[in-house]
Amino acid sequence: MNASEKTCLVVFSGGQDSTTCLHWALRSFAKVEAIFFDYGQRHASELQAAQTIAARLQVPLRVFNLDFFRELGGNALVDSTVAIAPVPETGLPNTFVPGRNLIFLTYAASYAFTRGIRDLVTGVCQTDYSGYPDCRDATLKSLERALGLGLEYDEGGLVIHTPLMFMTKAESVAWARELGALDSLAYSHTCYEGDYPPCGKCPACILRKKGFAEAGLEDPLEARARGVE
Amino acid sequence: MNASEKTCLVVFSGGQDSTTCLHWALRSFAKVEAIFFDYGQRHASELQAAQTIAARLQVPLRVFNLDFFRELGGNALVDSTVAIAPVPETGLPNTFVPGRNLIFLTYAASYAFTRGIRDLVTGVCQTDYSGYPDCRDATLKSLERALGLGLEYDEGGLVIHTPLMFMTKAESVAWARELGALDSLAYSHTCYEGDYPPCGKCPACILRKKGFAEAGLEDPLEARARGVE
Repeated sequence: MNASEKTCLVVFSGGQDSTTCLHWALRSFAKVEAIFFDYGQRHASELQAAQTIAARLQVPLRVFNLDFFRELGGNALVDSTVAIAPVPETGLPNTFVPGRNLIFLTYAASYAFTRGIRDLVTGVCQTDYSGYPDCRDATLKSLERALGLGLEYDEGGLVIHTPLMFMTKAESVAWARELGALDSLAYSHTCYEGDYPPCGKCPACILRKKGFAEAGLEDPLEARARGVE
Repeated sequence: MNASEKTCLVVFSGGQDSTTCLHWALRSFAKVEAIFFDYGQRHASELQAAQTIAARLQVPLRVFNLDFFRELGGNALVDSTVAIAPVPETGLPNTFVPGRNLIFLTYAASYAFTRGIRDLVTGVCQTDYSGYPDCRDATLKSLERALGLGLEYDEGGLVIHTPLMFMTKAESVAWARELGALDSLAYSHTCYEGDYPPCGKCPACILRKKGFAEAGLEDPLEARARGVE
């Protein structure tokens, strides 16, 4: 069966990368569904962004609550008592939530199983590597195999699509324009501080800014924040 | 570092197999911790069994709530409106919770990461195969690799120990006696119906009964139910 006849499930955070992937999925698959994980992020802005974008694109969005990471605590993305530190030269950044993407994709695969969906899409990317080992291609390929075996699919029965894996942020910005995703990106959320307009200073804002600058495009989110929609 | 100097984390359900594994872990590792997942099982008996056994053995037990499978619904282990059907000749039994062990082990690995523990122990077993693909050795080996990569451990840095993987139920009963685990097994929980004394008729009770019969031992749980402790 071709992708153009199948349904896929996009792991959607309302961020820049998964928004771009959502547009790619809409172009590539017959039907698209999305799944959002509320894992105790510091800010509600992510969920709001995801809901706004999904509604604009008429993509059904299923939200699951994961209290686990909140209970685990101790890192800057779920624990508001921990300040976000700059990415260290070596070692893991303090925004590392251990196993986050492993769990998201495993949950996504379980949910997809109940929906008869065998194609997952995620915006993880190892090129603009922020120190998250669960975003690397080797990890994802290995997880794809484990999940396929654990759900008793034939070899290659489960596919985790990672269209941004080897793109730089600048390349993914250029690609988002090609895909017609810029309108959606105006509603996407990136800032670790949860600010709107974005703080511009956290590691996530800096990475996003750099990508748009290198692609020679204005970030539609900033245009929207200035009231130029 | 030898196992005898390390701490391990046992994925503990309060059932026969993980109880046996807990005893193996106590014999093999310097320190043992346990983790229990409350995922909307039909009965509270599992948690009660786990707490009783862990307390008797003075093993610290951390309980995490996973609402996900309850929200997913549609199978007999989490949805009390679905009756437990006999294991079919082909295909998956209706007690299959898609991805259950994948998620348990991924969560366990994340929690272990925060505790500095890199050895996980699980009682899964592919020999007395009940139709659960997430209990097979190939699945677990593949998951071990994916989790290790996702948590940025060196090759072989994360180990999932599955001491019962290739044992029949009769062999694991005989081994439980060797390990001195029979006292604990008197408090373990197996019955899918949540009954005490166990119903003796569900697929889980039948498998347990067969194991003790073939090992030529009386089930200490039945002895306890008769008041012969």
